[in-house]
Amino acid sequence: MADDAAAGPQRASRGRGTPAHRTTADVTPTSSDALSRPSDTPGTRILVAAAVETMAEKGYNGTSVRDIADRAGMSPAVLYHYFGSKHDLLVAIMHRTIDHLIERCEAVLDAAPPDPARRLRRLVREHVLVHTELRREAVLGVGEMHSIEPRERALLIAKRDRHERMFHRLVNDGVASGAFGTPFPSEAVRGILTMATGVSVWFREDGPLTAAEVADRFGRLALALVEADPDA
Amino acid sequence: MADDAAAGPQRASRGRGTPAHRTTADVTPTSSDALSRPSDTPGTRILVAAAVETMAEKGYNGTSVRDIADRAGMSPAVLYHYFGSKHDLLVAIMHRTIDHLIERCEAVLDAAPPDPARRLRRLVREHVLVHTELRREAVLGVGEMHSIEPRERALLIAKRDRHERMFHRLVNDGVASGAFGTPFPSEAVRGILTMATGVSVWFREDGPLTAAEVADRFGRLALALVEADPDA
Repeated sequence: MADDAAAGPQRASRGRGTPAHRTTADVTPTSSDALSRPSDTPGTRILVAAAVETMAEKGYNGTSVRDIADRAGMSPAVLYHYFGSKHDLLVAIMHRTIDHLIERCEAVLDAAPPDPARRLRRLVREHVLVHTELRREAVLGVGEMHSIEPRERALLIAKRDRHERMFHRLVNDGVASGAFGTPFPSEAVRGILTMATGVSVWFREDGPLTAAEVADRFGRLALALVEADPDA
Repeated sequence: MADDAAAGPQRASRGRGTPAHRTTADVTPTSSDALSRPSDTPGTRILVAAAVETMAEKGYNGTSVRDIADRAGMSPAVLYHYFGSKHDLLVAIMHRTIDHLIERCEAVLDAAPPDPARRLRRLVREHVLVHTELRREAVLGVGEMHSIEPRERALLIAKRDRHERMFHRLVNDGVASGAFGTPFPSEAVRGILTMATGVSVWFREDGPLTAAEVADRFGRLALALVEADPDA
């Protein structure tokens, strides 16, 4: 990143800093604010943000604990103190990301009218919005799942399944009520989830469409996909 | 892989082998046969297959030249002789994969009737079929693009764009003729490509649907997505 290169000469001395000493230029925690927990200290919040940025740039395997600590302006010992290992920090990012996604989507469904088409449109819009906000986290979640130890991976997959069940239940309801005409509800849900999650790969904040516009369009695409009235 | 663990004790001696000495148990070149070139030697073909398998398992960064050479039953010097570097071997895999995809899809379009809905259905089916056949190659192509040097990356992206233009042209034609009702042809193409490429992530040969069945279903989903008559 540009400010990384500029900060090069100070890097070595910053490595010994503490959260109080860090220069905020290194980490842009905007997207990761969504990932914070009530129990977080300022240090854990900065470490999560620094890890997301570094792993998104270099991949999990290409990222060292030193890289993350440097970007956070802390010593590696602080990272080990809070998270135990680089692996556990990735696990924490993944849990926080999927928890946030589920929370947002469940809240939208709770507030949505009973009509399946409107519910699906709102659910897909929210899924897309979260994936424009947590782009790097989502890309890590898909691309680095193989880096997670089996026990934790099983827990993460169970959460992902819970999220996907919202979509399956909704599409099955719509098919049962006759609102959705698709003969392939299971593949339609896969298609919706894949294309709505894929937004995290290509969406750019300075692109031609706002996040809300992209979310609206994918809401309509989802209704088309299940063969519902797309103007519902 | 299971046969890797079993082969452990023989590993050191196999490292000095030549293509003629390799045991075929290490590499299953089925999917990578599609990637062969007329100029290939048996050695390059085995190296490509071994690299695909190893990188799919361990990721590009987690794979060493020694890992690939061991799996191919060759010395690293042979790999360097044919491909120059691990990077150039990944580049070769990516070019071969996208070339094969474009060739297959262009052939299908050449033979397809003029009706846009039928053309789109056949194009999507072929795209899905290739992605069930070259699953690991496709996952590498998406996940490791950031590992490719800028000059080669630009060439690969140009090829990917050429592939995507087939879809954009076809969907725009369908909208212009009134066969497709979508108000968002550009996002519809993104959706189609994302969900049809995503098949490479979840398709399993021992799963409930054959590759042809998955391809058929996604062909229909694509027609629904562009708001065409899905029974066309």
